[in-house]
Amino acid sequence: MKALRFENQELMLADMPRPQREGEALVRVTTAGICNTDLEIVRGYANFQGTLGHEFVGIVESSPNPAQIGWRVVGEINAGCGQCELCRTGDSRHCPNRTVLGIVGRDGAFAEYLALPADNLLKVPDSVSDQQAVFTEPLAAACEILDQVTITTAHRVAVIGDGKLGQLIARVLATTGCDLVLIGKHADKLQLAADAGIATIELAKFKADPNHRFDFVVEASGASAGLQLALDLVKPRGTIILKSTFHGAVQLDTARIVVDEISIIGSRCGRFEKALALLEAGKVNVEPLIAAEFPLAAGVTAMQQAEKAGKLKVLLRNKS
Amino acid sequence: MKALRFENQELMLADMPRPQREGEALVRVTTAGICNTDLEIVRGYANFQGTLGHEFVGIVESSPNPAQIGWRVVGEINAGCGQCELCRTGDSRHCPNRTVLGIVGRDGAFAEYLALPADNLLKVPDSVSDQQAVFTEPLAAACEILDQVTITTAHRVAVIGDGKLGQLIARVLATTGCDLVLIGKHADKLQLAADAGIATIELAKFKADPNHRFDFVVEASGASAGLQLALDLVKPRGTIILKSTFHGAVQLDTARIVVDEISIIGSRCGRFEKALALLEAGKVNVEPLIAAEFPLAAGVTAMQQAEKAGKLKVLLRNKS
Repeated sequence: MKALRFENQELMLADMPRPQREGEALVRVTTAGICNTDLEIVRGYANFQGTLGHEFVGIVESSPNPAQIGWRVVGEINAGCGQCELCRTGDSRHCPNRTVLGIVGRDGAFAEYLALPADNLLKVPDSVSDQQAVFTEPLAAACEILDQVTITTAHRVAVIGDGKLGQLIARVLATTGCDLVLIGKHADKLQLAADAGIATIELAKFKADPNHRFDFVVEASGASAGLQLALDLVKPRGTIILKSTFHGAVQLDTARIVVDEISIIGSRCGRFEKALALLEAGKVNVEPLIAAEFPLAAGVTAMQQAEKAGKLKVLLRNKS
Repeated sequence: MKALRFENQELMLADMPRPQREGEALVRVTTAGICNTDLEIVRGYANFQGTLGHEFVGIVESSPNPAQIGWRVVGEINAGCGQCELCRTGDSRHCPNRTVLGIVGRDGAFAEYLALPADNLLKVPDSVSDQQAVFTEPLAAACEILDQVTITTAHRVAVIGDGKLGQLIARVLATTGCDLVLIGKHADKLQLAADAGIATIELAKFKADPNHRFDFVVEASGASAGLQLALDLVKPRGTIILKSTFHGAVQLDTARIVVDEISIIGSRCGRFEKALALLEAGKVNVEPLIAAEFPLAAGVTAMQQAEKAGKLKVLLRNKS
């Protein structure tokens, strides 16, 4: 089968055997999405070698759970050891021995087939299209914020970053009825958010006002300067939610964190059920975020396109 | 009156008029304590010029509240504007227009007299000595942690830093019955904590074990390397409490914060009532932490002594 791989510092389309992992399901991938994490891996993040990709929709070809065969599914990307305390209490997302689809020790979704434990797979409701369902993983990551903090109509909230993840986060947080603004650099992307009813500010026109700071600031810019901006925007005793993972270190003046008793909360993967429910209920419209679609065979080009500043979601499609 | 001042990048003993601030109390200082923050101010932190010092015990000489006159008091160091939302809801510690005794816009306690709003003053119980009561402010800062997070007997907790603040924090957290260890560099200071019944580890002999990480890590080392060590020690979904304020920036790999969903909580001043209650109940023994006492006239020498590595609390005494 074809697979888009990162090996020896090189991105390449390769011919690979279909994945076989004992006791796991085999999924024929129909659609996959390129995430900033995939781009960061090519820059050195996570030190990963193998088939890239962790956002996908596919059809179950074989499974230790025969009921799943033929299902259209999405899949949780973390596969725990099943033995440790975290796995036993139901949170394999943080298992220290986990593999992560296309990120840690496990070939990913930019291929014709992938393998995952049967328990990782969730059936996609019929009313949700492949193009919508492929957003389940990043949408779940956006939903994770609401599992970590309580945001209500009383809160002022800023999301930094008008890219793929920032757009999804803004749409999810908007469902809380909070006083929300998306801060970004790109007029066209901010317009997309405005079309979804979200207030926006262009960074170049923005002046931080110490008297009108935010209760919550979500950093989803993917840039190392984002955390310092978040610190400038958050009010005393406010909370910053860190979403961006990138390769490299950040310079930080920690005195403001201490003096103003700021909380910084790292936030990664979320549970898929909530994201699928939002898509099924039509509460989050993701399709305007699709910038382009490519066949898997054009995967290298697709990654280059996704790298371009201002690009939203680039999809890889496998024709059946 | 004599006052130990930091002016034009110089530490000096000066002759100053007694402070007069309209509507405030005048306190004759009997004992003051040198804090790391005082040492950091001399290195450039907070950009403060004026009389240093914010840890004190004194006698009320005059006050808009006549009942206070003659009281032996300690005092909350933040004086709010009284008008803003934070002041109106009882948290002037975070008023954006606050002055802070010896740190922001207000002469401090290394003097024969100081001024503070009457509402900032708390009577010291008779059973608590001056040498104990002078620890009220840093002890309250240690207690603040327990106002921010819930630590129980089920939690593994590490405190980084065997200095003045780390020692107080370890003593306060020990009252929760948690599984506690103090990590430090100095055998003699670790022995002091061991004498108080606290488990200790010398940093040079310590190996972080990824399988035995801590639920909570308190960073009180005052060193920029402390935050990275805290990140190495905290378990996935664990919490780091940042206590050290220092001049300068920290290099930080934020990916671990995001991937492992770490929380970092800044923690500063706490409420004095809890600290006075701990001292009155004899639950925290602070006197072994006193390294030396100097008269205010020898304040420059006292600051130099406090700078020496390994020094615990240095006090300044005014003989009446």
